[in-house]
Amino acid sequence: MPAAAVFTSNLVQAAPVQVSKRHLASTGGRAAAVIVNSGNANAATGTAGLDAARAMCSLAARQLGVGAEEVLVCSTGLIGIPLQMSPIEHSMPRLAASLGVERQHGGAAARAVMTTDTFPKEVHVEGQGFVVGGLAKGAAMLAPNMATMLAVLTTDAAVSAPGLRRALGAAIRPTFNALSVDGCTSTNDTVIVLASGLAARPGDGHLEAALTCACQKLAALMAADAEGGTKVVRVAVSGATSDRDAIASARSVAESLLVKCSLYGSDPYWGRVLSELGSSGATLHPDRVSVAYGGETVCRNGVGAPHDERSVRAHLAGGEIELHCDLGLGNGSATVLTSDLGHGYIDENMRTS
Amino acid sequence: MPAAAVFTSNLVQAAPVQVSKRHLASTGGRAAAVIVNSGNANAATGTAGLDAARAMCSLAARQLGVGAEEVLVCSTGLIGIPLQMSPIEHSMPRLAASLGVERQHGGAAARAVMTTDTFPKEVHVEGQGFVVGGLAKGAAMLAPNMATMLAVLTTDAAVSAPGLRRALGAAIRPTFNALSVDGCTSTNDTVIVLASGLAARPGDGHLEAALTCACQKLAALMAADAEGGTKVVRVAVSGATSDRDAIASARSVAESLLVKCSLYGSDPYWGRVLSELGSSGATLHPDRVSVAYGGETVCRNGVGAPHDERSVRAHLAGGEIELHCDLGLGNGSATVLTSDLGHGYIDENMRTS
Repeated sequence: MPAAAVFTSNLVQAAPVQVSKRHLASTGGRAAAVIVNSGNANAATGTAGLDAARAMCSLAARQLGVGAEEVLVCSTGLIGIPLQMSPIEHSMPRLAASLGVERQHGGAAARAVMTTDTFPKEVHVEGQGFVVGGLAKGAAMLAPNMATMLAVLTTDAAVSAPGLRRALGAAIRPTFNALSVDGCTSTNDTVIVLASGLAARPGDGHLEAALTCACQKLAALMAADAEGGTKVVRVAVSGATSDRDAIASARSVAESLLVKCSLYGSDPYWGRVLSELGSSGATLHPDRVSVAYGGETVCRNGVGAPHDERSVRAHLAGGEIELHCDLGLGNGSATVLTSDLGHGYIDENMRTS
Repeated sequence: MPAAAVFTSNLVQAAPVQVSKRHLASTGGRAAAVIVNSGNANAATGTAGLDAARAMCSLAARQLGVGAEEVLVCSTGLIGIPLQMSPIEHSMPRLAASLGVERQHGGAAARAVMTTDTFPKEVHVEGQGFVVGGLAKGAAMLAPNMATMLAVLTTDAAVSAPGLRRALGAAIRPTFNALSVDGCTSTNDTVIVLASGLAARPGDGHLEAALTCACQKLAALMAADAEGGTKVVRVAVSGATSDRDAIASARSVAESLLVKCSLYGSDPYWGRVLSELGSSGATLHPDRVSVAYGGETVCRNGVGAPHDERSVRAHLAGGEIELHCDLGLGNGSATVLTSDLGHGYIDENMRTS
C-alpha cells in the first residue's frame, strides 16, 4: 500500500534508517508492514547491523507473505551494540500470530516500543470519511530538524504515495519538528505512515489536517513524558523579521539549560529568556522585546514591566507553561514545545549500563 | 595607558558593555582603571542602566583624578533589575583608599567579583622582561563565541593600543572562546587588558604568548569551578575537513546534555558522542570516525572497538577527562574545554530569588 516516511537528519544514520530508506525508494513508496524493536538502536553497528536490519525485514516478510522490500524497519535503544537476531527470530511466529485490527493490538504495539517512556502513546483522529491512527515512542533526544523519535501512523484514506508524502511532510513541520526536549537529534528518528486505501479519497487538505492533528497529539504526549520533565512548556515567538528567525529564537529559548532550570524551579527570571533571544542568531532590537508568562507581560521594550507577581508565580507553578516572546520587528512567528530540566533527566541519562 | 577589550557577541548587551565600548572608542584604546560590581548585571535596565554605568565610571574617575572616559566598567549578576547606585556611591572613597599594588590587592579584587564562583581566580605569568597578571569570574553561562565571563588582565609590557588589541584577540580564541559550560552566551561577557608600559617592549609574539598562557589558566580555573560540574573535560577533535568543522564538532559534543550526563555518571557510552558528531553540521563520514577516552579507543571506523574496559572506566571516574574524536577526513582540529552536568547545576540555577 502507499507509504511515506521522514527520517533523521543526523549524518550518523542507524542501520534500520538506511534499510527503510532503500526499501521505500525501491518500491516507489509502497510498504506492507513496519517491524520495530526497542532496547537496541542498531546504530553504529557497521555491515553486521545492516544485515540484521535486512534480516528483520525478511523474517517479517516471510510470515506475512510479502516481499522483504515491502517491510520497513525501526529500532530504538542504545547505540553501538551489535543487535542479537536470535530473540527476534524466535519470536517472529508468535509476533505474526498476534497481529490484529482491534484496539488492543495497537495498544500492544505502543507498549512494545517504549524505552524510557513512562506511558504508551497512541492517537486516533477521525477524518471526513477516513481515520488516522498512530503510535509513538520518545522521551528524550527529541529535537527539531527531523522526525525526532519513532512514530508509525496508519490511515484507511485512499491516497497516492506522492500525496501521502506531501501530507506527511506538511504535518511534521509544526508538530514533531517543533518539539525539543534536549536539543539532541538521534540516529534513529523515523516517522512512517501507511495508507490502506480501504476508505474514501480525502478532500483537498483533509488528510494533511488529520495527519497534523495526529502528529500534534503524539508530540504533546512526548513532551508530557519528557525524561525528568515536570512541565510542558510552549515557547511562542512572534514579531520576528521572518519565520526562520522566529524558529531560531524559539529553539534558543526552549533549548537553553538556564531557562529550563528556571522553569523547573518555577522561577520567573526572564533575564535568561532575553539573553537567549540575543544570542540565537536572529535579528533582535533588545528595546523592542517583550516577554510574557501565561499572558502576563514581565518584560516590555527590553526592560522589566510592572506585573501581577502572584499570577505569574501561580502560572509557573503549574504543569503547563506558556512563554511568549514578541520581538516587535515583523510578522515571523513560531512555536516550540519543550519541557523543563529536572534532576530526573540527569538520573535517567547518567548511566546506561 | 593602552587598553583593549573583547565583549560578548550577544545582541542584548548590558549597559556596562555598551558604556565600556564607547569609552574605549572615544579614547582611541586607552584606559586608566576598571570598576566592577557583582550581584547585579545591569542588563535589560534601559536608559537608567546606562546612566548608572556612566555614573560608576564618573565616581571612580573623580577618586582617581582621571577622565570618566578613561574608566571601563563591568557588572555581573542578575539581569533585568535596576542597579541601585547608593551602595556604590557610598563605598567609593573606601574603595579608592584601598587601592594598591601588592599581591593582596589583586586577591581582594578577585574575591569581590565572585558570584556563584566557589573560589577566586587569579593568574600571574612571567614574560621575558614583563609580567601579565589577571583575575576572572565565571562559573556558568560560559560559552564560546566571545569573552564568556568577566576577566581583567594587566601587564607592564610597553605596547601600543593596536598591538595590545591584536595580542588579546589572538589570546582569546584558543582559551576563553574554546570554553563552554552550558552553551549560554551572557549579556555581560567582557575581557579587558591594560598595559602600563613600565617594563620592556616585548619581542615579536611574546606578549601574545604570555596573554594566551594567562587566559588559558583562567579558563581552566573557570572550567574547574563550573556550576554543578564534577569533572573538567577536554573535547579534542582532529581529522575534520577544516578547523571550522572541528570547532563545530567539538562544541556539539561538549554542549550535549546527553554527553554531559554520561560524563557525570562516568559512563563510557560513546554512542551519544557519535550521534552529536553526526548532527553538528560538520562534514562527517560515520565509517571513518574514531572516539577515545583517555587515549583508549572505544570506537573505530564508526563501530565499537575492542578496548580495555577497566582502563576506560578508571579514566572516566577521575576528575579530568580526555575525549578525543578523530573524523578521519582532513587536517582540521580544535579543542573545547567543558564540564559534566550534575545535579548541582540544576540546584544552582533553578531559583534566583
